[in-house]
Order: sequence, then structure tokens, then C-alpha cells
Amino acid sequence: MTDINDDPLVIAGQTFASRLILGTAGYPTQRIMADAVAASGCDMVTVSMRRISLAGHGSDTVSLLKGLRFLPNTAGCETARDAILTAELGREALGTDWVKLEIIGDRETLYPDAAELLKATEELVERGFTVLPYCFSDPVLCQRLADRGAAAVMPLGSLIGSGLGVSDPALLEQLCRRSPVPVIVDAGLGTASDAAIAMELGASAVLLNTAVSKADEPVLMARAFRHAVEAGRLAHRAGRIPARRRAEPSSPQMGLVGS
Amino acid sequence: MTDINDDPLVIAGQTFASRLILGTAGYPTQRIMADAVAASGCDMVTVSMRRISLAGHGSDTVSLLKGLRFLPNTAGCETARDAILTAELGREALGTDWVKLEIIGDRETLYPDAAELLKATEELVERGFTVLPYCFSDPVLCQRLADRGAAAVMPLGSLIGSGLGVSDPALLEQLCRRSPVPVIVDAGLGTASDAAIAMELGASAVLLNTAVSKADEPVLMARAFRHAVEAGRLAHRAGRIPARRRAEPSSPQMGLVGS
Amino acid sequence: MTDINDDPLVIAGQTFASRLILGTAGYPTQRIMADAVAASGCDMVTVSMRRISLAGHGSDTVSLLKGLRFLPNTAGCETARDAILTAELGREALGTDWVKLEIIGDRETLYPDAAELLKATEELVERGFTVLPYCFSDPVLCQRLADRGAAAVMPLGSLIGSGLGVSDPALLEQLCRRSPVPVIVDAGLGTASDAAIAMELGASAVLLNTAVSKADEPVLMARAFRHAVEAGRLAHRAGRIPARRRAEPSSPQMGLVGS
Amino acid sequence: MTDINDDPLVIAGQTFASRLILGTAGYPTQRIMADAVAASGCDMVTVSMRRISLAGHGSDTVSLLKGLRFLPNTAGCETARDAILTAELGREALGTDWVKLEIIGDRETLYPDAAELLKATEELVERGFTVLPYCFSDPVLCQRLADRGAAAVMPLGSLIGSGLGVSDPALLEQLCRRSPVPVIVDAGLGTASDAAIAMELGASAVLLNTAVSKADEPVLMARAFRHAVEAGRLAHRAGRIPARRRAEPSSPQMGLVGS
Repeated sequence: MTDINDDPLVIAGQTFASRLILGTAGYPTQRIMADAVAASGCDMVTVSMRRISLAGHGSDTVSLLKGLRFLPNTAGCETARDAILTAELGREALGTDWVKLEIIGDRETLYPDAAELLKATEELVERGFTVLPYCFSDPVLCQRLADRGAAAVMPLGSLIGSGLGVSDPALLEQLCRRSPVPVIVDAGLGTASDAAIAMELGASAVLLNTAVSKADEPVLMARAFRHAVEAGRLAHRAGRIPARRRAEPSSPQMGLVGS
Repeated sequence: MTDINDDPLVIAGQTFASRLILGTAGYPTQRIMADAVAASGCDMVTVSMRRISLAGHGSDTVSLLKGLRFLPNTAGCETARDAILTAELGREALGTDWVKLEIIGDRETLYPDAAELLKATEELVERGFTVLPYCFSDPVLCQRLADRGAAAVMPLGSLIGSGLGVSDPALLEQLCRRSPVPVIVDAGLGTASDAAIAMELGASAVLLNTAVSKADEPVLMARAFRHAVEAGRLAHRAGRIPARRRAEPSSPQMGLVGS
Repeated sequence: MTDINDDPLVIAGQTFASRLILGTAGYPTQRIMADAVAASGCDMVTVSMRRISLAGHGSDTVSLLKGLRFLPNTAGCETARDAILTAELGREALGTDWVKLEIIGDRETLYPDAAELLKATEELVERGFTVLPYCFSDPVLCQRLADRGAAAVMPLGSLIGSGLGVSDPALLEQLCRRSPVPVIVDAGLGTASDAAIAMELGASAVLLNTAVSKADEPVLMARAFRHAVEAGRLAHRAGRIPARRRAEPSSPQMGLVGS
Repeated sequence: MTDINDDPLVIAGQTFASRLILGTAGYPTQRIMADAVAASGCDMVTVSMRRISLAGHGSDTVSLLKGLRFLPNTAGCETARDAILTAELGREALGTDWVKLEIIGDRETLYPDAAELLKATEELVERGFTVLPYCFSDPVLCQRLADRGAAAVMPLGSLIGSGLGVSDPALLEQLCRRSPVPVIVDAGLGTASDAAIAMELGASAVLLNTAVSKADEPVLMARAFRHAVEAGRLAHRAGRIPARRRAEPSSPQMGLVGS
């Protein structure tokens, strides 16, 4: 697990030791959250600006995670205008100009709104933010977001909180191959192998929350994801055998004793 | 990766530090094979009796892997009779009464022959062998093999050498839940996430060869599998969130700034 | 739907107009059962010997379906001996020597027992039965059953009643390609497309019950399956395009107006 | 196949007998194209404006298909401006104000450009067109297109020409459930069952070209799709049994003869 030296994640010129980003919401207790974050080996966490900004709530999250980088998110925003306002609050509150840009287009599915994302990305980049938009896994949209200055793109693996994993592997692979910026798969991962799959398909990192926070044993699951991200990245680099529908023996079959 | 203390694999009363078993055939060189085995962290490897028994060929494999346990296999046998003979040769050559029992029922697909397996398992157990039959992922067959004394069962994940992974996850999960002996998924795994999936579904261990030996970078892939097996086992123990087709936000959605 | 002339299903020398076989159990009413059978266009139905043989119960099923062929099944049997006895009762009661051979190896999953099937098939063929064993989708087992005289094999698509469809398409395709006798996929189909998939992979026919009998609208679902079986068979014969991960335009892309 | 009376497809107030729309490009010969269209039972076909507009090429297509409705498409356009121009040419040439709006955002994958689609849809609706945009299967985008007046949406099943089918079933189901206008799955279908699946998930219709035109036997495949669309629609209406991982016998298991 000393891959940082030869294969680090770089976003907007910053180097990361881990390719896993964890959310901080919904854990049974703050203690378990901090333990899970530690077990995951991640060096960046997301925090919802709503929790930080409202009456000091969330300040314990920040102090519990001292030493880690924070990626404020604009969860719950429905327009570019709201998201920009929330991003500014995050910059002020957490002293970082990085922002995970979330703009919801549908309150029930929480799917992001492509048109608003394009608008907000452009504006936030102009204001000096490092913008990581949470978006649909639409390769053209990702290209357009990168064109407007997004530092990375965060396509959803599947419906948020669904645990369905990477629901369209061929599409994600395509997207990763063509993206000019790092691809961070965000939302929908349910268990460790989902993260390994995302990495094998070419993702630069994964972001998840519910899969760990709502697991029966969050700390154990955080460790599982740590290994899974490592496994998937290594396998991606190692170059897998092709999948095909024909048998191929690993042991020699001829000249057998007794045959 | 110190799980051995709290969560070891036990087969026939023997404890294993790793839940990964590696095959030793088909590597670019013997050196790369030895390095991959080391990188995988496994403590048991399979060797084909044909290679060992023929004119000393294979003896370097054995000396290169000193310190590891050997699991001789009967690859290439087509009848119970041949397999028993080959197992006896393995016992003599390698000084172990463990045997991975392979009896091919079809030369092209290398699928195992259920009826011959039942016969050979019974006979080998009587002769004092510790028998691990490579079989179809048929839960009733696995039960019958266990009834005849098999120490573990080795259902195939998918067609050997296909790299298709676990082709029927619901079936494997069922099989693992009902098996009275450890289940070791063998054959068909193509990349790291396949191993993680097998472990998440409840397998006790995985055995693979081609996925590592024929990867572009076998040593890197061996490391990937080491992490993947760890990830899958931890995730299995951690208790994943259910998969479902409804969204669930991880961040709170109400009371947003600006809404 | 006049395919019978150029592409009929033939089992044991008998020609069938439809490639769909329906079960007759579990419908809301006997009337709906008869209507669904009619809507499905099938010309053979399975009936459980237990229902027929017990005190005349089931005799109305037989009279309601006058004109159709009956395929008595040995549902619920757990040994070759029981199954042979039940088959004999079926022959006497229904005047047919055809039998769908079911021998359960596990009361909870209802998975079939390979070893008992081999034994019973051999014995029933000797007694003059036309035997269609319900078995695991194990290509070697299917070959062995055919060797012992089975007129067709009935591998399960997935767990009975699960509605999971064909859970291992690569395996079923392999099995169909290699089977010396017709392959009838039985159990696990949930909806129409599952039947189409089975046929596209090379199955000669499908048998189902719950997917129709427990649908919200059994008669409508029976019609759906009729079309699906036709669709799948035609597509199999038509030779599909390969699946691949690269785009290919159907319309010409060059020389566009305005470009 | 007389479903038109009780379950017709209605788009923009027009009623269609068939839920299948066929493309007309890439067939071995024009004769086979016309035969396949007839065998498919469809009553609307797409034609590329480029083929129609260039020097009379394509005029035979139009005359061969007399009696069918034409849906001109803007295949190959890369901007809203080009697409609008092409749509106007189609209106003039074919005497219809219906248009399948295609705006490519990536020349290699032919994925559509969401932002340009929104712009062009708005403008074309203002000009009196009935607009059916070919788009990514992004539910929020589909909602926005409908808000701007699209008469239907045409999300891609998977990469065009890939034959991968519906690559994200959970997403398509979600999209169909929420769309205020008919959903026509377009692109990526490879064989008949793919169309059945799309319809079962709630699509109102499917559009395809390569799967038929490049099949070994296009006319046979056209018939296959006709049945598959019917099968999928009927199954959708019939209400399928749930999929689950537990067995459920269709035949009674107790009180068996001999047990």
C-alpha cells in the first residue's frame, strides 16, 4: 500500500495518497464516523455545507477529522444560483476553494441537472473555485464540464443510495477512456467489489458514503473499501485477461499419467 | 491484513493465513511465477501432477516455492480411476495427502464430471486423502460430496480460463449459505473484482491461475487479488447495505441555504 | 406464427407446433388456467402426478385441457425409486409414457439430484418411458443423461419460482451448443424477455408455470410468452449482430448539409 | 396482434398500430430493406436527411415505403444550428413536420449533446415541428426536453451499433416511470430480447436499425422484433412476478405418492 509514490492521484495539481473519498453523513455516531474515515485511509472527506453552516452544527465533524482535506458539497441545491451561494459559504467556513458541485434536478431521485451544472461550473471557475461537479455519466456532458474548467468529473455509478454499483460498466469505461480530467465515481456503490469494478474500468477515484455509514459494521466496511480501491487500481494497471466464452485450461492436459 | 487471528480460513483442521490459493502454471517465467506467488500473500499453491511426475519437470517449481503448502491436482484426468492413481502419485511426490480432485467430463470445456467425482471422492477419503473436488456449482452435488467426506468443495465461478467471473451470483450465494464445508471458488475469475464478489457472496476462499499468470503484469495482478480477497471477505463480514431501485440521499436535503 | 412447417420442435420423433410448454398449477381459478393455456398457444402441458392421483383431484384439469398433450411430472419425489413409481402412476392415469422426471435433492431450493436422475433415467428408459429430466444446467450431466436415453434435457434457468430468468447465459449457450438432444429451459423464468433470451441462446423450448400463473394478468402474460418464444426462436435463426463496446452509426455521417 | 384497439401508441395526438420504428439504412439491398420493414409490421420509419437531400439519392427509399409515415432524422449534425437547418430540409422534402432530432457531441461514440438538444428543441417547437430528440438516458434531461415541448424522448439503450441492449435497466425503468411524454428507446439494441426488455421496463416504443439491417437474415430478424415488442408490451401490462432469490415450487410438494 505504498502506491502513492509511483501512482498517485492528482487533481488540480494536488497529490492524494488515497483514491477513496468518504462522505461524513449518516453514521450511527460521530465516533464511528471518525473511526471509519481512519480505517478507510482516505485523505479527503466531503461535508455538506448545510450541516456546517447551520448554527454551528457540524463543527465537531470538522474538528474530529483534523488533518484531512475537506471537500464541501452543495447537496440539496436546485439551481446554479443556490449552488454558487452555497459554495461561497463553504469557502468561507472551511477555508478551501474546492467544491463538489451538486445541483439536483429531481427531488425524488436526486439526479443532477446537466444544464445548471454547466452554468454553475463556468461561474464558479471564474470565481476561482476548484470545481468537481457531480453529474450524470454522460461522456459528452463530462467533456463540456471539463471544457468549462472542471478539475474532475464525478459521474454517478447508479442511483444515489441504491447500492446497485456501477450500473453501466461499458459506459463508464468509455467515459473514463475519453475524459480529459480525472473521473471520480460517486453515488450508488453498495459494497467493496463495486469500488474495485469502478477502478478497473478506469476511474481515478471513488466517493462513497452510505455504503460505509449504513453497513452493519461501518469500520470494517471502510477497511473493505480501502482494499477494494487498491485492488481495482492495481488490476487496472496490471492489464486483465480478456473475457470470452471459450475454455482455456491453466494446467497442461496432455500426456497424463494413466491416460 | 492481520485478519488471520480473528478470521482465519480453516480446512480439515488446518489454518490458513490467506484466503487465496494460486496455480503455478503458464507464467512467462518461473521467476515471475515465484514473484507473483509472493506478492499474492497466499500460503498454498496448486501444482499439476502431470508436470511434477514427468521426468523431474516441475521440480524447480517445488523448490522455488519452498515454505508454501502444495495442493497437487489431478488436472487432465477423465475417470475416477485415473484421478485416484494420479492422487497417489501426488501423495508420494509431494508428501501431502491433500488433493484437488479434477475429473474432466468434456475435453473442450473441461467441465467436471459429477458422477465420477462422487465415486473418486468416496474412494480417496477411504484411502486417507484430504479431498477438495473441483465441481459444478450445483448445491446438491456439493452436499453429496461433503456427505462422502470432501474437506471443501471447489465450484467453478465460470468456464475455466474464460475470465467471466462469477457467472451466477445468486446461485453461488445460495451454495455458500448451504454448504456444510468451506466453499472455494475455482476457475473463471478474470480480474480482482471477481474475487471480491466471490468472497462477498460467502466463499471461504478463491483459487485462480490464468487471471494472474496471463495478465500483462502478473506480479501487479497478484497484489491486486490479494487486496481483492481481503476486501471481499471484510465486506462480507461488514454486512452490506441492501441493493434497491429507490434513491436515498446521504446528505440532508432540507432547510438548505437559499431554498 | 406458421413456423411449424419450416421449423418445428421435434422430441422423440413427435412434432410440436409450439415451443412453449406450460405448467397447470397455482392459477387463481381453473378457468383462468384454461384461458391462459389457450392464449399461450402451447400444445403440451405438465401436470403433477400428485394432484392427478389423489382422489380424483386434478381430473377436471385433464378434462379442461382436452386435446392437449400431457406431460406428467414427478414433482416432489426425492429418490429414483419414488420417481419411477410416480412415473408409472402417471403412465396409467394419463395414458402416456412421457414423463418429466423431477427428483429433488434439497427440500428448500428444490434443486434436482444429479446422481438420482442418472439412475432413474436409465431405469425409466428401460421400462419404455420417454424421459425428460429436470436437471442442473451442467453440460456434462446433460450429456450423461442423453447417453442413458433421455429424449430431451430440462436444465433450470435459475432457482425455481425466483423469476431471475436465465441466470448464466454463457453456460446455457454452451450447453445448447453441445447437447445431443433438445434443451428445454425449465424453472426460473420471470417474464417474457427471459423466454426470448433462452431461445436466442439456443434452447429448443421453454417450460414455465409461475411466471404465468402468478402474474397479475395470467392470460395476458401467456400471450406475452407466446410472442416471446416466437421472437427468441426467430432471432436465433436470424443471426444477431455481435455485441461490442464500440459505436457504429447506422446513418451515414459524412457530407452533411451544413457541415 | 390486434392490440391497436385497446392499447395504441399515441405521440403528439397521432395513433400508431405498431410500437416498433425501423431505420432504413445499411441493408444489403433496398429490396431486403422493404421486405424487412413489411415483416416488422411498423408504420413509421426513420430516414436520414443527408441521404434524401443529396442529389435525389434516397428517393427510391421513399417510394419503396409508400404508405408508411416518415420520421426524418438529423443524423450527423453537431450543432443546434445545423440540426434546425436539416430539419427544415426534411420538412420540405418529405412533407412532415415530425423530426427525430440528433445532435452529436462526440464523433467517435456519436453520443448526443444535451445542451444543444435543449436549444434546438426549443427553437424547433417554436417553428411548429413535432420534435423527438435522441438523447442520453438522463431522466432530468428528458424532463427538461419535455418542458420545452418535445413530443417524445428517445433515450439510447446503449452505445449506438453496440448491440449491448438496455445497458442500465434500473435507470430506464426509472426514466419511463417519470417521463411526462412517451419514451422510445433508440440505439444499442442487438437482438429481439433487448426490445422485449425495453418494453417490459415501460418504454412506449423502440427504434432500431442495425440489429435488423446487419443481422444475417434481416427479414427474419424484423419478424423477431415484431414479436418481441408485442411480447414486452403485453408482459408490461400483465404485471410480472417479482424477482427474488428464494425458491417457490409451482407444483405441490407434500403428500407425495411413495413419500
